[in-house]
Amino acid sequence: MDDELTAVLADLPGPDVAAGAAVAARAAQVLRPAGALARLDEVAAWLASWQRTTTPRVARPAVVVFAADHGVVDEGVSAYPSAVTAEMLRALRTGAATATVMARELGAPVEVVDVGVGRPSANLRREAALDAARFRECLDAGRRAVADLDADIVVFGEMGIGNTTPAAAVSAALFGGPAEEWTGRGTGIDDATWAIKVAVVDDACRRLSDDCEPLEVLREVGGPELVAIAGAVLEARRRSIPVILDGFVATAAVAPLEAARPGALDHCVAGHCSGEPGHRLLLDKLGKPPLLDLGLRLGEGSGALAALPLVRLAAASVTDVATFEEWGLA
Amino acid sequence: MDDELTAVLADLPGPDVAAGAAVAARAAQVLRPAGALARLDEVAAWLASWQRTTTPRVARPAVVVFAADHGVVDEGVSAYPSAVTAEMLRALRTGAATATVMARELGAPVEVVDVGVGRPSANLRREAALDAARFRECLDAGRRAVADLDADIVVFGEMGIGNTTPAAAVSAALFGGPAEEWTGRGTGIDDATWAIKVAVVDDACRRLSDDCEPLEVLREVGGPELVAIAGAVLEARRRSIPVILDGFVATAAVAPLEAARPGALDHCVAGHCSGEPGHRLLLDKLGKPPLLDLGLRLGEGSGALAALPLVRLAAASVTDVATFEEWGLA
Repeated sequence: MDDELTAVLADLPGPDVAAGAAVAARAAQVLRPAGALARLDEVAAWLASWQRTTTPRVARPAVVVFAADHGVVDEGVSAYPSAVTAEMLRALRTGAATATVMARELGAPVEVVDVGVGRPSANLRREAALDAARFRECLDAGRRAVADLDADIVVFGEMGIGNTTPAAAVSAALFGGPAEEWTGRGTGIDDATWAIKVAVVDDACRRLSDDCEPLEVLREVGGPELVAIAGAVLEARRRSIPVILDGFVATAAVAPLEAARPGALDHCVAGHCSGEPGHRLLLDKLGKPPLLDLGLRLGEGSGALAALPLVRLAAASVTDVATFEEWGLA
Repeated sequence: MDDELTAVLADLPGPDVAAGAAVAARAAQVLRPAGALARLDEVAAWLASWQRTTTPRVARPAVVVFAADHGVVDEGVSAYPSAVTAEMLRALRTGAATATVMARELGAPVEVVDVGVGRPSANLRREAALDAARFRECLDAGRRAVADLDADIVVFGEMGIGNTTPAAAVSAALFGGPAEEWTGRGTGIDDATWAIKVAVVDDACRRLSDDCEPLEVLREVGGPELVAIAGAVLEARRRSIPVILDGFVATAAVAPLEAARPGALDHCVAGHCSGEPGHRLLLDKLGKPPLLDLGLRLGEGSGALAALPLVRLAAASVTDVATFEEWGLA
C-alpha cells in the first residue's frame, strides 16, 4: 500500500458522537412512543453524527456512477458483451438509465465518471487487474469526484459489464470460504457460465499470497470502478459525508477499506441487500444490516437510491417532529 | 351484514389486466437486465393494473388518518391514557406529528378524520364495540373521505390509544390461533399489562359465535377507525385507487374484507411489516409480502409512507426508462 493511502487510512475522522447522541435523545422525546420508528431513529442518529449536526437532513443528495470495462470478460463470465458498458454510460449520461430516472425522482444530481470504458482492466484470472499506476489513477478519480461535490449524503454506483466477477473475487479473497458462495448470476448467466465464473474467482484468489494486504487484493482482483468507489468512500469519510452503499459490487469495492482499517466504513449505511447471494454474506461480514431487502440486482446505485428516501424520512422524523415538551405535554 | 355492503362486495371492479401485462412486458424490455429490479417491477405492474394505465405514476399521493377512542382502554391494555388520542389528533392536524412530517417530505396532503375521539367505542371485552348504526357511520365516514380525494395512490393511517387490542382481536377471531400470538406490546406495555391484553383478546373472541361473519367480527371486536379504514379501502377499490397498507391496525382493519370476499384487497400492497408480532402473521395469512421490514410500530400511516417512495420509484423505473428498442440497441 502506498504511503499516502496508509496515511489517509491512519487519520480518518471519527463521528460527532455528541450530535449523534443528541439526535438519539430527541428521537426518544418526540411525539411518538419511544422506539416506535426503530431502525429509522438509529439512522437519524447515525446521519447526525456524520453530518456533524443536531438537525440532520437529506437536502442535497448526490450520485456518482463510475464506469469501466473488465479484461476478465474474455473468460466468458457475463451474459452481455463489454460493448454494453459504453451504451449504458451513454444512457446514464443522457438520463435514460434506471439510476438516472430514480435520481431525478429524488432530486439528486448524477455525475458519471468514466474510469475505463473501452479501456479494460487486465484479466484478473491471469494477472493483476490493475498495475500500481492505474490503481492510483482510479483511486484519485474517485476521490476527486467527491472533492467536487456539494452534498449532504452521497450514493456511489457502478456500471461495468463483468464486474460481479471482481466483486466475488475481492470478497472471497478478503473473507475466505468457497468461491461458489460468493459467485452469483450477475446479469442472469446460465449454469455453464456460472461454473466458469466460479473457476475464474477460484483461480484469481489462488494467485494471491496469504498475507496479501486488503487494498492489494482490490488492485489484484478488483477493477477500475471498484477502486474508484473505494477512493470516493474514503474521500467522503475525510469530508464526513455519509454514504448509502449500493449492491454487491459497490460493497465489495469498499470492503477492503474496512479490512485494512476497522471502522473505515462507519460513515456508510447499507442501502439494500441485493439478489446476488454474495452480498448478504458480505453485509453480514461487515456487520451492516440493509435498509431494503427486495432482491434488486441492477447496480448503477439503484438500490442505494431506493433506500435514500428512508434516510430522508428518518432525519425529518426526528428534526421536524415536535417533542412532548415542545408540544406542552408531560 | 347489511344489504348495501353485501352488494358493494359482490360488485368489486377487477384490475386492468392488459395495462398490468403491458407494464410487466415493458419492464422486461427497458435498459437493464430482465428482472434486475425484481419486486419493484412487480409493484409497477400492480400499480398499472389498478391505475388502469400503461404509464403508472405516483404523482398525487394522499393520506387519510382516522382517529378514535376505545372503551377497551378501561381494561388497562395501553401504556397511554385515552386523552393522548385527542392530543395526537391535534398534532396530526397541525403537522407536528410523525406521519404529517413524513407526508410533507413526500408532497402528500394529509386529511385527518375524527370518527370518535372522546367518544369511545364500547368495551369489546364485554360487548360489541360498535352497534349497527355506529358501524355504518364509521364505514360511511371512511368511504366519504375517499370519495372526496383526488389521488393516484392512497395511504390510510390510524390513531387511537388502545387500538392494537381490537387489531389483535379481529385477527384472532378471523384466523384463529392463540391470542398470545396475535397480541403485541403496542406502544410499549410491560409483561403484566400484556397478560391483561391477552386475556381481553381471548374474552373478546369467546363472545363471538363460530359462524360470525367477517364484517360482524369487525363490528364486534374492532373499533371506529378500523371500520373507517375498511370503508376507505372498499371505496378506493370501487374507484380503482391503489392503496399502500400501513401496519398491524390498518391491516387488521381490512382483513375482514378479504375474508368476506377473497381478492377484495388485490388493490392493496403491504407497505411494511411492523414490529407488532401479529402483523407478520397477518400479512402471511393475507399473502401480502411487505415492501419494508424495519420493525416500525408507530401507526398513523407512517410505515406505508416510508414505503411510498419505493412505489413511486418502481413506477418511474418502468415508465421513464428507455427500452432497448427505443434506445436503438438489439
